Amino acid sequence: MTTPSEISLEISLREFQLETQALIDAELDRLIPSESTSPNTVHSAMRWSVFAGGKRFRPILLRAVGECFGASISTLVRTACSVEMIHAYSLIHDDLPSMDDDDLRRGRATCHIRFGEAAAILAGDALQTLAFKTVAEDEGLAATQRLRLVSEIATASGTPSGMVAGQALDLDAEYRTVGGEELEQIHRLKTGALITTSARCGVIIANATDAELLAVTEYAAQLGLLFQITDDLLDVTASAETLGKTPGKDVRSAKATYVNIHGLDGARHLAEQVHAKSLATLKQLKQSTERLHAIADYILNRSA
Amino acid sequence: MTTPSEISLEISLREFQLETQALIDAELDRLIPSESTSPNTVHSAMRWSVFAGGKRFRPILLRAVGECFGASISTLVRTACSVEMIHAYSLIHDDLPSMDDDDLRRGRATCHIRFGEAAAILAGDALQTLAFKTVAEDEGLAATQRLRLVSEIATASGTPSGMVAGQALDLDAEYRTVGGEELEQIHRLKTGALITTSARCGVIIANATDAELLAVTEYAAQLGLLFQITDDLLDVTASAETLGKTPGKDVRSAKATYVNIHGLDGARHLAEQVHAKSLATLKQLKQSTERLHAIADYILNRSA
Repeated sequence: MTTPSEISLEISLREFQLETQALIDAELDRLIPSESTSPNTVHSAMRWSVFAGGKRFRPILLRAVGECFGASISTLVRTACSVEMIHAYSLIHDDLPSMDDDDLRRGRATCHIRFGEAAAILAGDALQTLAFKTVAEDEGLAATQRLRLVSEIATASGTPSGMVAGQALDLDAEYRTVGGEELEQIHRLKTGALITTSARCGVIIANATDAELLAVTEYAAQLGLLFQITDDLLDVTASAETLGKTPGKDVRSAKATYVNIHGLDGARHLAEQVHAKSLATLKQLKQSTERLHAIADYILNRSA
Repeated sequence: MTTPSEISLEISLREFQLETQALIDAELDRLIPSESTSPNTVHSAMRWSVFAGGKRFRPILLRAVGECFGASISTLVRTACSVEMIHAYSLIHDDLPSMDDDDLRRGRATCHIRFGEAAAILAGDALQTLAFKTVAEDEGLAATQRLRLVSEIATASGTPSGMVAGQALDLDAEYRTVGGEELEQIHRLKTGALITTSARCGVIIANATDAELLAVTEYAAQLGLLFQITDDLLDVTASAETLGKTPGKDVRSAKATYVNIHGLDGARHLAEQVHAKSLATLKQLKQSTERLHAIADYILNRSA
């Protein structure tokens, strides 16, 4: 049963989400060249994918962690945009015909369907570039902080231990049987690394201690795993309307998912275990972690 | 007629080229994950394109400029690798079927022909990431220098005033008539920006003055233009064996080239004018600029 205090936290998280989305969207609008700036097609393609109604989960996590350790939103917002640009670029490239070949994302045409493959590839490329430029030029942060952030984000998004490595392993896994451990490895790289790094960036900007960085890293690693398990669960249980994409696509294909490997009940049970682990790591922190707690609850119970 | 001192300079430039190539290749080999590192395909694809016998023109220019202002090779080598990685990533993506659709580069299969489109896209993505990571983590440079280099390289490789913008305009120009000024704008972005930035990075690492940076920028801008004009000339005059790709491809298509617009003699004349301009800017510098002079001569007279 939901208690009154849980209701208030949930409402407060919703407000926090909406406020962060608005802040991030406004800053992204300032950072990304306008559609009327030449070359128009590439800028339109960048904006099509960046302003596609994404939930801004990574910026929300980055902000929540940063504020938990006393950083102000003005020091966090540009790095949050940078992480979101990396995320958007990865979605554009992953949707391409030679990759996951998706026509629909968040209820509308994917970037290459709308603007053609060449523009989509270039839009992804330019978003990655802009992400690093944004952090490097963020005058609200110390030089050493900016460098550490560039390095963190690059490690989490490249190879051998970041997002691109995960996408490569995921494509490779389509053609053979994948076990639970290998699946976890794929997702730790493909989605987990950038989620974990988003949280770590919040700690770095707040100049928190190494022990605090370690605790947040473990919390976020569990959160990333939880995010992927609930993603696989939603793929089976949600309707196309809620999901904005064709549900059941992953489970029908031979593609490795938590539901394919553990079954529906097994995947649900795993989600609860991982959620509990993520909350346990927060106990190591002396700061008030209600917001981080609420984010983990939200990911466990999300319906979209 | 070639004088004895010109011969000695030419030999010395050749030795400088070979030595720089060896240094850059060794450092790139250290920086890029090995083919046996998971995910193997992506790392093999990155290496296939990076170690394809490229001339390392941008690293050579960066080194020559840096040393002209007193920087040591050990402070220049990693930024030179970073610029080369950006160049290699751009070639991989430009060769893709939805872009320039090239099967052959430097006499062998392009990345997507050899490894498939998905691996090629990811290899390009990962090379871009590694380029920024390499500069951000270069402990031989001051923090403020590294940030300035990340910002420089990002500006030169993204939109609206860098390489990706140039490639977008170039693709767009295939379907209509392009004039001389527009062609220059395309190439200034598509190849000129990164060439100019390579030279500027050398100045930045050497901590030279703003006036020196300005002179080098102008020299390198002319050099980039010269590089493209001679590229178009070679496309018409060189054999397939020398070129490592199908000659005449650009001039036969409706694609805008300096030869298509100015004719063969007109393009040759333009090359000489631009070469003279690039040398004139070097006169503003008090440093010994023989190497930079020799590089401009080499680009004017190159046969491959």
